[in-house]
Amino acid sequence: MATISYPNLMEIDFGAIKVLGDALARNGIKRPLICTDKGVIACGVFDLVRAVLPNEVAPTVFDGTPGNPTEAAVREALALYRQNDCDGIIAVGGGSSIDLGKGVALTASHEGPINDWSAVNKGRDRIGKAPPIIAIPTTAGTGSEVGGGSVIITDEGNKVVIVSPHLMPKMAICDPELTLSLPKYLTAATGMDAMAHCIEAYLTPVINPPCAAIGLDGLERVVTYLKRAVDDGNDRDARWHMMMAASEGAMAFAKGLGAVHSMSHALGANEDLRLHHGTLNAVVLPTVLRFNADHVGDKYSQLRRAMGLTENADISEWIAVYNSSLGLPENLGVMGVSADMIPELARHCMTDACHYSNPKRPTVEEYEVMFEQAIG
Amino acid sequence: MATISYPNLMEIDFGAIKVLGDALARNGIKRPLICTDKGVIACGVFDLVRAVLPNEVAPTVFDGTPGNPTEAAVREALALYRQNDCDGIIAVGGGSSIDLGKGVALTASHEGPINDWSAVNKGRDRIGKAPPIIAIPTTAGTGSEVGGGSVIITDEGNKVVIVSPHLMPKMAICDPELTLSLPKYLTAATGMDAMAHCIEAYLTPVINPPCAAIGLDGLERVVTYLKRAVDDGNDRDARWHMMMAASEGAMAFAKGLGAVHSMSHALGANEDLRLHHGTLNAVVLPTVLRFNADHVGDKYSQLRRAMGLTENADISEWIAVYNSSLGLPENLGVMGVSADMIPELARHCMTDACHYSNPKRPTVEEYEVMFEQAIG
Repeated sequence: MATISYPNLMEIDFGAIKVLGDALARNGIKRPLICTDKGVIACGVFDLVRAVLPNEVAPTVFDGTPGNPTEAAVREALALYRQNDCDGIIAVGGGSSIDLGKGVALTASHEGPINDWSAVNKGRDRIGKAPPIIAIPTTAGTGSEVGGGSVIITDEGNKVVIVSPHLMPKMAICDPELTLSLPKYLTAATGMDAMAHCIEAYLTPVINPPCAAIGLDGLERVVTYLKRAVDDGNDRDARWHMMMAASEGAMAFAKGLGAVHSMSHALGANEDLRLHHGTLNAVVLPTVLRFNADHVGDKYSQLRRAMGLTENADISEWIAVYNSSLGLPENLGVMGVSADMIPELARHCMTDACHYSNPKRPTVEEYEVMFEQAIG
Repeated sequence: MATISYPNLMEIDFGAIKVLGDALARNGIKRPLICTDKGVIACGVFDLVRAVLPNEVAPTVFDGTPGNPTEAAVREALALYRQNDCDGIIAVGGGSSIDLGKGVALTASHEGPINDWSAVNKGRDRIGKAPPIIAIPTTAGTGSEVGGGSVIITDEGNKVVIVSPHLMPKMAICDPELTLSLPKYLTAATGMDAMAHCIEAYLTPVINPPCAAIGLDGLERVVTYLKRAVDDGNDRDARWHMMMAASEGAMAFAKGLGAVHSMSHALGANEDLRLHHGTLNAVVLPTVLRFNADHVGDKYSQLRRAMGLTENADISEWIAVYNSSLGLPENLGVMGVSADMIPELARHCMTDACHYSNPKRPTVEEYEVMFEQAIG
């Protein structure tokens, strides 16, 4: 089993889940709120976690995490947390469950609406101690298990980012066993989320060579193993490396993200469409890479090297073809996004935390053009 | 200025030293013990640091750090620390001053001889809170500014490793300006220390992909910039990248080190010869790389890729030639190491903390052969 001690403590390997009891004891958690969703329970993965919970631990389960976590769902989970006098959180699921868990940790210890604590409102400097979180990812994509950030749709319908070292899980238990039953589509969509993280983090102009190196390593891993994991869900080697790549993506984006994420946050805020974050990232990635091409120096050469592409390969085109080989949608249009939504979407991007760290900050008009292109 | 927040907080750029006042305030240090050496004072670099110390701060200066820090020197510095009721440490210098600072932090808060707290004696699990350290490297090699480890020669003459997250500097202030006046020879020798860290960390069989990626990135940086920094000490770009590479080397070796370091620790423990750690690493590196060649899978291919070498290049040979182009000694023989010392040196290696993480643990006889080869 590999133990990695930064940014937080991570155990990664098949069977890693066995350390859960120790992790709870070490963090003084006796009455955890387990944040998860109905899919994780239905597919039997939740039982694998439940089976390793020590007898003396009295868990409360919140299984109502929506596809994109909302402030309302956080409130609901918080009510359970308080009602059962919980003293910590185990988040079991994809990025949504882990992000929701961070929302509960924040609101259990900080008054006021979530927006007050958002990154744009300088919450990072004001967020203090919060209850401990143990994160157990059941997808390989989000990387939320090794990050202090969370994305929540507020009551006003905005998708806001909250981020603080105090929301960083005390431990990430990365057991690829939990991803073996992940369906092809979710494997592909969450895997492309990891790819988007690695690429966007590498491209932000923020200078952080260790994060950049981790991002390139994660990217190489995704390109080598994602298709294998999609083609054969039981390819254990591929599942291990995708789980690692997902965590690396999030370690890398300590450096920042960019317009791919401002666009997919805007799109994900639409509660009628209920669009999947990883899928959105995959679909808008080629468009944003075309936009950024003239503003990144020779960084695309490094991306090509990590991806094993020839020097003049068109990365955008390569990713579009790769998306299609993974069975992901060709464009936003087929996902139900229409031209009339563009002005509102573009406006949303302009205040997203990730907007500011794109290699070149797009104007609202430039976002409109990119949405138009991505709708197809 | 680039701010990097793991493993500890680092500020890196020309002029970074200006954040020292803030760093002291943030860590509640009002009466720091400044650990440094006479060389740092003589060359004027110490004045650059002194100049940015806030008026309200009352520093005590210990400038007696030896080339390889000893338990006796730690005791001497600790006496000053206690006498002046110090409340934290600023370490200004190369690895020796920073490691000595960690020794003072340890002994100011933990009873008993240093050996009791060594890594081999499981000190890592027992070392608790220690006074805060701010590390200001004046060489680009050690990386001790971003590590929780320290190497000290005990009263018994052994070079022991102490390591704990509590000895990790609260902040690393990496100002390449402080390295502009570093002489050619020290630039080369400390730079090769960074290369040895990157290579050995990458080669240990411990699984830690983020650290491995950082190591390869640091290695690429050393190969690209070290010769430039040696040829022209005022090449600011080269100095920046070497400072980064040095920190990356130490971030990488959270993963572990190997026989290069067990050999150079053994050699460095000889108080008569007073051999320089980085130089020793440079000189024994080719020998150990030959020994490891059959025990590292395809890792040498990755090293070659990072170093920009052709697929069949002989890495050991390349490094030997590189050493010579940097003006470093050809072998241990010209440094004063003789065949009669071999048995004692080999014995020392067998209990060194780094011995255990070499790709293949050498036997005492294998160490003897390697010393013989490295003596030349």
